[in-house]
Parts: sequence; C-alpha cells; structure tokens
Amino acid sequence: MRIAVLGTGMVGQSLGRRLVETGHEVRMGSRSAGGEKALAFVAEAGEGASEGTFADAAAWGEVVVNATGGLVSLEALAAAGEENLAGKVLLDISNPLDFSEGFPPKVVQPDGRSLGEQIQSAFPEARVVKTLNTMNADVMVHPRQLSGPHSVFVAGDDADAKAVARDVLVGFGWEADEVVDAGGIAAARGLELYLPLWLSLMGSFGTPSFNVAVVRAG
Amino acid sequence: MRIAVLGTGMVGQSLGRRLVETGHEVRMGSRSAGGEKALAFVAEAGEGASEGTFADAAAWGEVVVNATGGLVSLEALAAAGEENLAGKVLLDISNPLDFSEGFPPKVVQPDGRSLGEQIQSAFPEARVVKTLNTMNADVMVHPRQLSGPHSVFVAGDDADAKAVARDVLVGFGWEADEVVDAGGIAAARGLELYLPLWLSLMGSFGTPSFNVAVVRAG
Repeated sequence: MRIAVLGTGMVGQSLGRRLVETGHEVRMGSRSAGGEKALAFVAEAGEGASEGTFADAAAWGEVVVNATGGLVSLEALAAAGEENLAGKVLLDISNPLDFSEGFPPKVVQPDGRSLGEQIQSAFPEARVVKTLNTMNADVMVHPRQLSGPHSVFVAGDDADAKAVARDVLVGFGWEADEVVDAGGIAAARGLELYLPLWLSLMGSFGTPSFNVAVVRAG
Repeated sequence: MRIAVLGTGMVGQSLGRRLVETGHEVRMGSRSAGGEKALAFVAEAGEGASEGTFADAAAWGEVVVNATGGLVSLEALAAAGEENLAGKVLLDISNPLDFSEGFPPKVVQPDGRSLGEQIQSAFPEARVVKTLNTMNADVMVHPRQLSGPHSVFVAGDDADAKAVARDVLVGFGWEADEVVDAGGIAAARGLELYLPLWLSLMGSFGTPSFNVAVVRAG
C-alpha cells in the first residue's frame, strides 16, 4: 500500500523503514519538504521511500500514520488537510505527553478526552485507529524480539479500518491473535493513560525492550 | 500473619476469605463494628476471621490492607488511626475512580498525585505498597485461573514491605517471578491510570477474567 508517515522523529523513521522493508511504499511528511531528517530517511530506506509536506504525503497515501508528537498532532493533521484524510485509515500512534514539568510526564487529555478521540472529532471522515502507542518504536516493528507472545491494541470506531491496521501489523511480524481489539475510539483514553505505567516499568527494568501480553481465562 | 482488611466490599470479602484460606488470621475493619457484611464475612470465613472498627482492626494487624473505595480511603485510614498504621506494611489495593459522571470513570489524581502517594504522604510511618489494583478481585486471589503466566505489580519505597507483599501474593498462588517491581510509590500513578484500559478491555472481552503479563526481551 501507499502509506504516508507524518513525523520525522525516531518513531516515524523506525516505522517508515520497516514499512518499506515489508513491501509498502512510504512517503514521509513533515512541515517543510526537503528537511534533513526526511532526506536521511529516503536515502536509508531506499526504493519505495519518498518525502514531502504533510499535505503532499497525506494526499498521496492510501493509509496515513500520525507519528508526530502528541502535543502537536492536531496542528500537523490540520496542515495535512482534512480533505486529504477523508475516507482514509488514519493510524494514530502518538502519545500526548507533556514533559514540561519534568518526569514523569503528564498525559494531556482535556476534559478526559484522549488525543485519539480529539483527532476523530476534528477529522470526522478519517477512519482513526489508535494503535502501537503502548510500546517502544523498535518493539512496534520487530515484535519477535521479545521472549514470548505479547499484545498490540487497536481501538477505533471502524471495523474495516481496524482490519487494515491488523494487516500492517501482521506484516511487521505480529501474529494475528496478538492484535487485541480494545473497542471503539473511546478506548484510546486508556491506551494513552497506560503510558505512565510503561514509563515506570522502563525505569524499573532499565530497558524499553518489553511489552505486555493480555492473558485470558484458561 | 495477622492481617487487617479495611473495607467490607467485594474486594475486601474476597481477599479476606482467601487470606484465611491461605493460613492468615484476618480482622475485617469497617466504620462501625458488627455490621451485616462484616458479620457475614466472619461466618463464612470461619476460624481465624474476626471483625471490628477500622481502628480495632488496624491496631491488631501486623499488615493492613486498604480495600476501601478509593474515594474514601484517606478518610477510612484516618479513622484507622495514624498510630495504628505506624511501622506497618500497608497494602493499598484501591482505585480512586469517580463514576459520578458515568462510564468510563475518571481516575482522581489531584495535581497528578496518585492515591498511593497521597496515602504514603498522609501516613509517613506506614510502609505503603500499591499492589493488586490492576485486576478483578477473583483474579487477585486465584491467579492460576488464567491460561498462562501473568503479572502483579508492586510499587513502594520500602523494599522489605514489598517482600512482605510478595509473600502474601505467593500464598495466593502467584509465582514469585510473576510479582513485578514497578518501582517506588510514585509508580502508583501509572498503576492507577491503567484502570481505564482495564475497563475498556473488560468491555471488549465481556469478562473481567483476564490480566496482563509483562514480556521482556528473549
């Protein structure tokens, strides 16, 4: 598929490279085309990789990934353009974390509304799926590095969009039964509020190479 | 050990019965001694079970469990008496959830401070361990009902107190390596903020009989 990855940070780079590796065409979107990080991505990822503005990338993509920082995502998506997101699967993998008062950061959810829900409200014709925000970028795209089965959540109001997300994840090496449906986009609230626990565990373990697995009744 | 269980709700009842079953003496504490739920507990749990006021139970216990509702815990512990908690291991298994505006509830953390941290601040001589709040009451005390290994977190500033918590948990059937140290009491923040995800998953699965397992690098 043609997948637009909005955001040139570590998560966008890691995801973009892996998407190209797993057979997709990827256009990385950023505020201005031709930036250093975007060009480095194109050079490293090789054939199938391109870059442009948020709007260029979103208009071109069949699927759009929001890998921008959670505190600027609404602005970045506005720059991408509502018309370029309409009807498309929008994978929101961002976390609205405010580190301005130090560690641990605060999860920013005005009136208890998650960023995933705010994005769905602001772009009602996009088919938003919150996913992958609950783990380290390298675990997202190389899930088999852990010692056993673990879980990646999907939350969204559109079942077909969640199926598209699942296909992309399976391409990364996730088993289909590791993709856990957490419910509608309202479940993004819990997925974002999980981050403080993840950060505590990272501190306790001294590594970000871990995840959680859902375990059900025997 | 002599374990005081403060709170006569479902969690207190389930935990109290299982503590008696696993060899402890248990005194259930409530606002007034001789209430219906506390007497029912004593009758059901049998030898080793008693009941009294919050203060009676806390004074008698070597370990104190806060199984009161999270929104009234500070008040209940004040009634238990700072002097009766001093030096003791205080297992805080409560969740500060406000359902007054419907579902999903809000996690109440004034200025980002968890209930576990507030309890530790209010009772500085108690040795607070946040644990067991991340799952259903029956899974807490019968962990082997799930299909594989899963995790129970402990967070607190006192390593010896966390070791006491681990012993109690192992008594319930948890494996020692399923008890995951999430860090100091500040990690209670993430443990409490995990509840919205737990509630979404319960809604999605249609059952509270599940938990998460931490999976680390292979």
